[in-house]
Amino acid sequence: MENIKFDYSKGAIKQHEIQYLKSPILKAHEMLHNKTGAGNDFLGWVDYPICYDKDEFERIKKAAQKIRNDSDVFIIVGIGGSYLGARAAIEALSHSFYNEIADGPKIYFAGNNISGTYLKHLLEVIEGKDVSINVISKSGTTTEPAIAFRVLKAYMEEKYGKEEAKKRIYATTDSKKGALRTLAEKEGYETFVIPDDVGGRFSIFTPVGMLPIAVAGLDIEQMMNGAKDARVEYMEEDLEKNMCYQYAAVRNILYRRGKTIEVMVNYEPSLHYIAEWWKQLYGESEGKDGKGIFPAAVDFSTDLHSMGQYLQDGRRDLFETVLNIESPKLDITIKEDEDNLDGLNYLKGKTMDFVNKKAFEGTLLAHVDGSVPNLILNVPKMNEYYFGKLIYFFEKACGISGYLLGVNPFDQPGVESYKKNMFALLGKPGYEELREKLIKRI
Amino acid sequence: MENIKFDYSKGAIKQHEIQYLKSPILKAHEMLHNKTGAGNDFLGWVDYPICYDKDEFERIKKAAQKIRNDSDVFIIVGIGGSYLGARAAIEALSHSFYNEIADGPKIYFAGNNISGTYLKHLLEVIEGKDVSINVISKSGTTTEPAIAFRVLKAYMEEKYGKEEAKKRIYATTDSKKGALRTLAEKEGYETFVIPDDVGGRFSIFTPVGMLPIAVAGLDIEQMMNGAKDARVEYMEEDLEKNMCYQYAAVRNILYRRGKTIEVMVNYEPSLHYIAEWWKQLYGESEGKDGKGIFPAAVDFSTDLHSMGQYLQDGRRDLFETVLNIESPKLDITIKEDEDNLDGLNYLKGKTMDFVNKKAFEGTLLAHVDGSVPNLILNVPKMNEYYFGKLIYFFEKACGISGYLLGVNPFDQPGVESYKKNMFALLGKPGYEELREKLIKRI
Repeated sequence: MENIKFDYSKGAIKQHEIQYLKSPILKAHEMLHNKTGAGNDFLGWVDYPICYDKDEFERIKKAAQKIRNDSDVFIIVGIGGSYLGARAAIEALSHSFYNEIADGPKIYFAGNNISGTYLKHLLEVIEGKDVSINVISKSGTTTEPAIAFRVLKAYMEEKYGKEEAKKRIYATTDSKKGALRTLAEKEGYETFVIPDDVGGRFSIFTPVGMLPIAVAGLDIEQMMNGAKDARVEYMEEDLEKNMCYQYAAVRNILYRRGKTIEVMVNYEPSLHYIAEWWKQLYGESEGKDGKGIFPAAVDFSTDLHSMGQYLQDGRRDLFETVLNIESPKLDITIKEDEDNLDGLNYLKGKTMDFVNKKAFEGTLLAHVDGSVPNLILNVPKMNEYYFGKLIYFFEKACGISGYLLGVNPFDQPGVESYKKNMFALLGKPGYEELREKLIKRI
Repeated sequence: MENIKFDYSKGAIKQHEIQYLKSPILKAHEMLHNKTGAGNDFLGWVDYPICYDKDEFERIKKAAQKIRNDSDVFIIVGIGGSYLGARAAIEALSHSFYNEIADGPKIYFAGNNISGTYLKHLLEVIEGKDVSINVISKSGTTTEPAIAFRVLKAYMEEKYGKEEAKKRIYATTDSKKGALRTLAEKEGYETFVIPDDVGGRFSIFTPVGMLPIAVAGLDIEQMMNGAKDARVEYMEEDLEKNMCYQYAAVRNILYRRGKTIEVMVNYEPSLHYIAEWWKQLYGESEGKDGKGIFPAAVDFSTDLHSMGQYLQDGRRDLFETVLNIESPKLDITIKEDEDNLDGLNYLKGKTMDFVNKKAFEGTLLAHVDGSVPNLILNVPKMNEYYFGKLIYFFEKACGISGYLLGVNPFDQPGVESYKKNMFALLGKPGYEELREKLIKRI
């Protein structure tokens, strides 16, 4: 079977630079696998593809089937790691206009912002439809999903009555503690577990991602197989044989050289949310202590007509990582046109994917000539299996890359700062002192 | 009437820094208004809100009404400046789930990528529906829209026959020359003009943006009024009285201080595409000659749970510009819950927008404490008028900012590099020599 291939031949990396990182990478590998590094309480994702709860996995499939049978609408209530993975999978693997053409329930996201306009519009669009909800939160008290769920729970109970509503609400949360766990048990929701040792941004293979992905009609078994194979493959400790570690090494080499922005590039609009997921993974894992590559993303060729000028000719502190899907899902052949006023007849008989690939190659060489190192991740095709593999590739590389950088890749202390301020300004009990200080500053 | 206000009090700017830029800003102002600076062939946007063709504007409204009457589906074929402005307006001003709930035609974009999968999915989703198309291209030979239009034109002619198809295709293009002009005249399409002196990224108030925006049922008259008022307001040459110039000045001050990434922030998901439009405007105008602020964007509070950690605590080479909409379109009041397991009862009676605003203020102070200068654009509300004003604000500031930076803000030479390579690799006649060179490098 073909495999994901990482190609850094256009990265302007010298071979000795890789050599010099062999031993630091080995060290990072050992820290990760022997759990001796910072954040070692959050390494549950490493072996999750073989250690996961098989009974729960079957329960996920059954719940997904029930939801597909009895719902026109499925709402995922979660923010950050509690929705980005599922969204990335559903967009990458489903129809481009899924909600307009789906044979399963329409899928909406809520609790991932605090916009009353958005939530009110959502309530409008689901009016008269049969609804199921998956609320995803480790604690149950994260402000965004908690507010949305409070509104949606009331909506469901009003619509269906308490008894039927509870059969349509699924909670993915902590196994024992927390507000959502308590609520779910009191109400009698079916629950799924967010493991203690898996952080949000690494949680896609847990029920956090698996239930919504299964509801979209995707094959979560194949996705897990991809992750499982990736786990074995990327366990190889020799940098020269492990492409996942090569990605970790190369991005650190480029960072140390002053390439402080990494731009994730794709050539298929459906991959947009893989980049959003990736931004969280790397931004939150490495962006700390004044360090870290700034993660950005573009959709090509779309954004060649917006960010293309900058990438070609702006400040030279960036590099690109291209997610290249080798075989497209569908294709269209360009036909001859009698008049040929658009001058495209030289492409007759060629497919759009052929053109897309030439846009990729042409851009690659142009940007390299413009002093932008380009890294390429060649993925044979975009299906559940390779999606699972790719996700694991990025996760493993992220852990290694973070250790190379000298940070704890598994915490996110900075995320608390705005929350504390927000609680104080909202008048939450216990924050009175901070509140007074902040109000003076606004 | 309330107005857009630019607040840089949280930007860590010293007053003398502003003073020192008074005369350079005045110089830039004169270059722009006297058309003595670089790119002075492309200043048609400056007075466009008063100079536009009023008859054509009426024709746009009529065409939009016809499309709304006879179409279930409206497809905008264009890339870069030929779709981003319209998309930004439609998303900011319409229902969050417009295509699922619209009383007008569903709106789709095509020709803004080279994905065969996307285009095939689009053809599937419009099957059996009545369709109109607006193809937008100055030349008619830009690869992405040209391919999509070739496919869609054949589809329309097969579906409707040549006679009816031509009544459903609207071309926005050059007034005299180019492939699309020739084609439109040969086929008898209704046409609208892209002026010679307005570049793509400055073209939203021309028919490029106005026709699609009107088809979405929005009030283009009000939008133009916003632009018209902005034109007068931001003509003021005194930096201390012109908030638009203050934005240009402050971002240059921050850039010179090493803040090389500007992150555009919003707190409403519907504003996402305003940031995408803004990224093209600033990235393409300033990202050249190895210079320019790297434009990035986040949707808060969504992305506080992905990019939040980096912004709070990563490399300190960035600043934020917050687009703050003072009054929300809709709102939801948080109700009391008997059990209060989620602990939100302290918010009972408060609205989601109240919480959203506190998230904004809390984040602002947290990021400022994390050494991220924050600039704020306060917009009273998001309607057609303020949208028009805001767009003009950004355009004017961009011209001034580019002159301050010392670039030609109105060209985009770097965009050609990948195109040349792509044509060569595609085997386009005339590129044989380059083709041979490139093939060896892949």
